[in-house]
Amino acid sequence: MKYRSIAVLLTAALTGGICLAQTAPVEDFKKTPTTQQEKEYPQVNSERRVRVSIPAPEAQRVQLDIGGVKYDLKKDEKGVWTGESAPQDEGFHYYQLNIDGASVPDPGSLYYYGASRWGSGIEIPAKDQDFYALKNVPHGQLRETYYYSTATKSVRRVYIYTPPGYDKDSKKYPVLYLQHGMGENETGWGNQGHANLIMDNLIAEGKSVPFIIVMENGSVNLNGMPRGPRPGGIPGQVAPQGGAASAAPGQGAPAGNAPRMGAGGPRVNVNFAAQFEKILFDDLIPYIESNFRVIGDQSHRAMAGLSMGGMQTHSIVVANPDKFSYVGMFSSGTFSPSEIKDIDSFKKKTKVVFMSFGGREGGSARIGAAAEEWTKVGIQGVSYVSPETAHEWQSWRRSLHEFAPLLFR
Amino acid sequence: MKYRSIAVLLTAALTGGICLAQTAPVEDFKKTPTTQQEKEYPQVNSERRVRVSIPAPEAQRVQLDIGGVKYDLKKDEKGVWTGESAPQDEGFHYYQLNIDGASVPDPGSLYYYGASRWGSGIEIPAKDQDFYALKNVPHGQLRETYYYSTATKSVRRVYIYTPPGYDKDSKKYPVLYLQHGMGENETGWGNQGHANLIMDNLIAEGKSVPFIIVMENGSVNLNGMPRGPRPGGIPGQVAPQGGAASAAPGQGAPAGNAPRMGAGGPRVNVNFAAQFEKILFDDLIPYIESNFRVIGDQSHRAMAGLSMGGMQTHSIVVANPDKFSYVGMFSSGTFSPSEIKDIDSFKKKTKVVFMSFGGREGGSARIGAAAEEWTKVGIQGVSYVSPETAHEWQSWRRSLHEFAPLLFR
Repeated sequence: MKYRSIAVLLTAALTGGICLAQTAPVEDFKKTPTTQQEKEYPQVNSERRVRVSIPAPEAQRVQLDIGGVKYDLKKDEKGVWTGESAPQDEGFHYYQLNIDGASVPDPGSLYYYGASRWGSGIEIPAKDQDFYALKNVPHGQLRETYYYSTATKSVRRVYIYTPPGYDKDSKKYPVLYLQHGMGENETGWGNQGHANLIMDNLIAEGKSVPFIIVMENGSVNLNGMPRGPRPGGIPGQVAPQGGAASAAPGQGAPAGNAPRMGAGGPRVNVNFAAQFEKILFDDLIPYIESNFRVIGDQSHRAMAGLSMGGMQTHSIVVANPDKFSYVGMFSSGTFSPSEIKDIDSFKKKTKVVFMSFGGREGGSARIGAAAEEWTKVGIQGVSYVSPETAHEWQSWRRSLHEFAPLLFR
Repeated sequence: MKYRSIAVLLTAALTGGICLAQTAPVEDFKKTPTTQQEKEYPQVNSERRVRVSIPAPEAQRVQLDIGGVKYDLKKDEKGVWTGESAPQDEGFHYYQLNIDGASVPDPGSLYYYGASRWGSGIEIPAKDQDFYALKNVPHGQLRETYYYSTATKSVRRVYIYTPPGYDKDSKKYPVLYLQHGMGENETGWGNQGHANLIMDNLIAEGKSVPFIIVMENGSVNLNGMPRGPRPGGIPGQVAPQGGAASAAPGQGAPAGNAPRMGAGGPRVNVNFAAQFEKILFDDLIPYIESNFRVIGDQSHRAMAGLSMGGMQTHSIVVANPDKFSYVGMFSSGTFSPSEIKDIDSFKKKTKVVFMSFGGREGGSARIGAAAEEWTKVGIQGVSYVSPETAHEWQSWRRSLHEFAPLLFR
């Protein structure tokens, strides 16, 4: 980083630029893993700037909207608009284009669900991307299936990661229930989180024991519109029109900005935790334990989540101290032993409390002391700070990569 | 249809409209299963017109581009552009928006891979949509995993449908290898085809025996750029820049039109069949038969595909008459017993040759006679014509729904 910064400043000086944003970008832009295979853009350069390009011959103004900032593109003589962002953090970011006032997905990107919408995402290659890369190792399976929830009175979609070997042996496995963040859904950990590849690689390296991961939709409002349970594109469960957005305050992206997960700090509808808790214990855990080869006790059950999902984990564990032995909160605040009424009973079965934040998040300063509190009462407290990342997926991929090896040892 | 047509004409007469396109649409528009849950548009009305709406206050011209036709939208005083298409066929269609010359996905839709791009798709509710609806029945699993191909020297993504009960019993199952069309990939049959739900429903009704379905990417060019094998968004297998499009003629959407699968009739790069054949026999079938509980003989192996995928099925079966017992060609031309050298040997193991077309496709007139040829030589020949559909997914969903009950009896 140090040398890169000096290089950028030198470049700025040589080109007469006054600030970084005015410096000509380094011309080593390449397609990214999230660029559609048949498309040439978006691209990213070694400074981690995003370059987009789109033909829009009749447009008056085209902008790239990423990280809460809008960057004007420039039109060439063929009517193609091209431009770059400032350097972005390594990892995954949501973004969009703005064409004469219309906010639209970039036709060159792949699409992800986040900030309460399906839209463009971009992968900024990271120094440590090897841990979630696709490799020639034994692969587990990411299974999409459906089950009936008595709590929501509907058929719900769930994703289940089964580790390599699950189909060939007859062992029973421990299970991690892993939750997404606000405005995301059950596709997040597989699509942008690469939870399956992170586990495949950890297991291949002998760094994690194999376990099952269950990913469901934690954005539930049992009193109003069902949020999230509708799997897209399928007749039979069309959600009632409207209402959903207004029933769940704090879900929208900031007006006029690119969607930012948890921009301004996570805001959580506290009802979500209690309502997801009902689905979890009434329907989801019983479904998993009767349909997969699972060791169905506290010692072999973990829960974790990012942002809102970690807050759900936190409040569900406090309310149900006899259900999980491993607790993971990624960018979700801190958890203190003082919140558990019967700590002597809790510490007999609870093995690890893990808290993490991106280094650019305010919470990162507090988790070290919070982890120590746990270690003092006899439960392994672990804190992790993701270097040079904020409230974003690279922090959470790294958090899973740190958390998984601690489980079920 | 008759009454609807009369009603439309009456409406046209009453409003003074001269042709259907100028008639005011019936105002019963509703969100569709492919509208994002948090969004209000796109919508469809009882005439099967598509209405889109997008804020674009500074735009000069906004169009809806669907079925090869561009429809001008109108701007209201708030800068929101809204407009409708002519009635569309029931079922699934790719589309896009055009904003001041920029072709972009509709920010309100879900996204699908077809016409060699990820982009907007819309579901026009069909009279017979119940057969692919999400119901409270036992559900199979759609499994995403990866395996190493010696033919492409890369890790490839494959989707595998396992029927309800697969995880609980220890039976071995027959297998259908099911291929997508030109410009589509291994996600097509699950995402827009709903193959998993079609099977779940057929099995629940006792109309099909349970079997495994394998869905891989048939767009392969072993001599040039690997096409399709890169699963999106994952580091480790970024395809080389460029080249891919030029290596595969006939893949692009017609310039300036919404992507139409096989518009102008399917054009197939014949190499794709021979090259996918190598992956299929060298890598995919061995992987499936050693990792799933499969009956690995000709009698329990079927192959089918839509458009290009059916042509691949056709040529692979002709070249390998001892590998499959059931053959399905959906919108893929005709297959004649005269193409098989040793018909006496072929008919000992081959049970069904199934050919289908949408009723609006030219080929639909020829498949009845082609099916009869098979029946005459002692193999069950079956033809199916999908009512009032063209070269599109509703034809192929219905074809699978007709084909599956014939298998492995």
